Formats: sequence, C-alpha cells, structure tokens
Amino acid sequence: MATAPWKQLLLNALESNSHLKHSSYFQLATIGVNGRPSNRTVVFRGFQDNSDKIQINTDGRTRKIEELKHCSFVEICWYFTDSWEQFRINGKIDIIDGSNPDLHKLQQREKSWFANSLKSRLQYLGPNPGLPSLSEHTQPNTSLDPSTGPVEAFCLLVLDPDQVDYLNLKSNQRLTYRSSVSATAEKMWSMERLNP
Amino acid sequence: MATAPWKQLLLNALESNSHLKHSSYFQLATIGVNGRPSNRTVVFRGFQDNSDKIQINTDGRTRKIEELKHCSFVEICWYFTDSWEQFRINGKIDIIDGSNPDLHKLQQREKSWFANSLKSRLQYLGPNPGLPSLSEHTQPNTSLDPSTGPVEAFCLLVLDPDQVDYLNLKSNQRLTYRSSVSATAEKMWSMERLNP
Repeated sequence: MATAPWKQLLLNALESNSHLKHSSYFQLATIGVNGRPSNRTVVFRGFQDNSDKIQINTDGRTRKIEELKHCSFVEICWYFTDSWEQFRINGKIDIIDGSNPDLHKLQQREKSWFANSLKSRLQYLGPNPGLPSLSEHTQPNTSLDPSTGPVEAFCLLVLDPDQVDYLNLKSNQRLTYRSSVSATAEKMWSMERLNP
Repeated sequence: MATAPWKQLLLNALESNSHLKHSSYFQLATIGVNGRPSNRTVVFRGFQDNSDKIQINTDGRTRKIEELKHCSFVEICWYFTDSWEQFRINGKIDIIDGSNPDLHKLQQREKSWFANSLKSRLQYLGPNPGLPSLSEHTQPNTSLDPSTGPVEAFCLLVLDPDQVDYLNLKSNQRLTYRSSVSATAEKMWSMERLNP
C-alpha cells in the first residue's frame, strides 16, 4: 500500500509541534441528529497500523455516536498553532465498539484501549457523559486493574480519509488532495494547488 | 438587554489566554452543499456592540458562504489551549455582504472592515480562494488606500448563539446553557450542570 502523499505533511506538522501537548487535539465535525452541525475537540490516537486511517477514542454513551450512526461522514479541522498549518480531513468513520462482529477490529479496539493511560481508561467508568450531573461531589475513586480489557463504553473510531485540504499560513500555500479508487481497487491520491 | 451568563466565562477565557495569538482562533462547522460536515479555522472579530453575537470576517467567494446560504446553522468549537476550556457554541449565522438592504447592517460591515489591518484587507483583493492556483508566483503587490471602504468580497458573518456547552478540563466541570424566548420576546438563558 502506497503512503498517502499528505501523510508526510501531517507527520512533519506533528513533529514540529510536538512540544505542545495540544498539538494532538483536533476538532471533529459531525451532523447532529437534528441536521445541524456538531463540533468538538478530540485527541489523535495515531494512524491505524501503517495506513492513512486516523484513530480516535470516545465514550460510546456520547452524542457523537448517535450522530455517527445517522451520518458517518465527518470533517476534522486540525490547526497546528506553532507551525501555522491547517489540515481539513474529511471522510467516513467506522465505529468499533464491543459488539463488533469483526475479530480483527475487536483486536484493534483492545490495542487502542491498552495504549491509553490508566487514568484515561478510568473515564469510561464514570457517569454517563452529557447527562445532568446529579451531584456536585467528585466521583468516588473507582479503580481498574491494569490488565482489564476494554470496558463496554470504550469505542474506537477509525476515519478513512477521502479528501485532505492543507493550508500553510506561513508560506501562504494551499494544497488539496483527493482520493479515487483505481480499476484494481487501489486508493489513489491526486493533488492540486489552490488559492489560499 | 441582560448579558448572556456564558459570556463572562468566554471573556475570562479570552483574557487568561490572551498571551497566545491563536486564542482568538476557533473552528467553525457548517453543513456542506453535499450534506456532509465542513470545518475550518476562523478568527474571532469580537462581539457585536454589547450583545452576545459573535462576529467573523470572511471572503464572500469562499465555499462556506454557499454552504451558509443552504443551511445557516453552525457550531463553533473553541478550545483554549492554556486554560483547557472548550466552548461549543451553536446558532444561526447572518451573512452581511455589500448587497444587504439593511443600512444598519451595512454600517456594521464597514466598521468591521476598518477594524482589520491593512494587510488583512488586502487579502480580499487576492485571487479567488479555493480555486486552482494558476501560477506559482506570488501575487503582484496590490495596494489599497487606507480610507477605502469594504471591497465587494468582504463579508461579515454574525452568529446569534442558541446554545453553549462549556467544558473545563482542569476542574472537570461541564455546563450547558440553553436559550429560549420569553413572552415579551426577550432571550432567556437557562443553565444545567452535565457530566463531563
């Protein structure tokens, strides 16, 4: 599988902004169940294996899961604050929860679970996100054995990019990458230079 | 007009992150003409007068204008990287370009134009954004008289917020503010504490 031509640009941006904790945060836009846009910050959990697919972890009880079940198309907007680069990545998201019938996908979910810190894993045992908070107290300290596999609420999202728009505000360059599927069912990328 | 209760939280976040140039940048999600989400970084241009309406400047030739004409509902996601606060602000956008029949709105557009630096204003005279770039050369230096009013491409967007979701990742607090219209046609806000 050939590497997507925009992937190296993204890896470079991650490298040159790696001193900033928030450089792995981006904004994920979905279509709300009411048909209006929905937008929130999520954390980059790496590319899947050696592909150009982007991994995100989320709680299966959040509203975005319901939204993605209605419409799986999303657009990521990822702005790197130090290098002034923006990536707009759109494509389709595959939701991988514990009920997934595909064994390989379940293994990917498990791998992603163990790649999280224990503290991050504990969040998936907290109260239902987005529901009214019933108490002002902090939650009692739940504990989790480090060897325990993914809990029910843990969800792996995998974005398969269709199109990537790259903007560099320092060089004032804008490039757009579009994918297509070849006769041999291979994903091909074409690039065009656009006015910023 | 009463101040929206979330506005002070946002003003505080702007103040405590003001040493960061990118603290005035946020991500604006719209619905694409193809029905898929669209997401990009834009710059906060202040509240309109003393209201809770959020101003954005854009080039009328960008795709977002076409999208907003199809669906004027948007969601802003604004993450403050130093204070770890996120505001998700959704509502409707009013597009104010030079053809607007409302004289007061045209004045607001003009005010917003002159609030921009000369360098920012010059961008609206550049080649059509998003179209293929015809040359690798930088554009010839166009010049603009500082007293010249808004050019045709200059557009003021005004977001009237409906709902604001506030998340503080340091205190692990989440608050949601919903607006409603009272019997006397006044906008009222209610607040609820949610699980983060």
